[in-house]
Amino acid sequence: MPIPLHAASTAIFLRGLTNLAALLQKAEAHAAAQGLAPEALIQARLAPDMRDLAGQVQLASDAAKAGAGRLADVARPSFPDVETSFAELQERIARTIAYVQGIDPAATEAGADRAITLTVGGRDYHFTGAAYLTQFALPNFFFHVTTAYDILRAQGVGLGKLDYLGPF
Amino acid sequence: MPIPLHAASTAIFLRGLTNLAALLQKAEAHAAAQGLAPEALIQARLAPDMRDLAGQVQLASDAAKAGAGRLADVARPSFPDVETSFAELQERIARTIAYVQGIDPAATEAGADRAITLTVGGRDYHFTGAAYLTQFALPNFFFHVTTAYDILRAQGVGLGKLDYLGPF
Repeated sequence: MPIPLHAASTAIFLRGLTNLAALLQKAEAHAAAQGLAPEALIQARLAPDMRDLAGQVQLASDAAKAGAGRLADVARPSFPDVETSFAELQERIARTIAYVQGIDPAATEAGADRAITLTVGGRDYHFTGAAYLTQFALPNFFFHVTTAYDILRAQGVGLGKLDYLGPF
Repeated sequence: MPIPLHAASTAIFLRGLTNLAALLQKAEAHAAAQGLAPEALIQARLAPDMRDLAGQVQLASDAAKAGAGRLADVARPSFPDVETSFAELQERIARTIAYVQGIDPAATEAGADRAITLTVGGRDYHFTGAAYLTQFALPNFFFHVTTAYDILRAQGVGLGKLDYLGPF
């Protein structure tokens, strides 16, 4: 039995964004408890040429927004990457959740065969909606949520796999 | 239009495992080029209480094996976590790919409503097949592939997002 496209896309993005918000809450509490400046976490990164925590959250937001918006073929708002505090990152996530929640599931369901073109590194890549979701949008979204988690773990924040997976 | 369950499960696992194998090939080449002992990468980790690269590859293998096997309700082989070299990790991935490829797509398709119970941290969690896939199996699989990538990036291996996403 196939599964509805929205169960494999918007529902996954919403759950992941909610879990990401919870990770950031724990990170903020960790900084407060350790007397650590929030920026020490927000600007932390795993490699000099990788994005910092703020960047990973922004890209997770963008990945969910683009993934859900392209599948449903609805307008996507532009969110400038200006967040520098935990409160601002939470607000970015909340705005992303509101956008994804506002997408009509019927529009998403119509997206499996939609022609979607991505330009990456100056090259055009052509997908059906289903291929775009499974080969690009989902891996890309989970990449940034996981890397946010990994940055926080590398900084000593007490998190476990169930914080990443979220409540069941 | 819904998507076939195997497109949202086994096909994703196979693609991710193939990309993970390519990441490890680049890592091995990096170690050789830098005159670095392979173990310096294979035993690298992001935090003292996280698994090292070998562990992340083993868990990505287990996540794909369990995800695909539980959905299709077929026997899952046990792969002991004994790999200590790039060649052995590649062989583990190849064995996992062969197992996932051998699953009858019809058995996977029958899995959306299957009752699946997971025991995590001594607690039982009950899922339908579709919920297990979207809430547990996919996030868990991408977690370990991404963390393997993140470990390699943190160790200075020259990788980019397209190495993680794989060829289109």
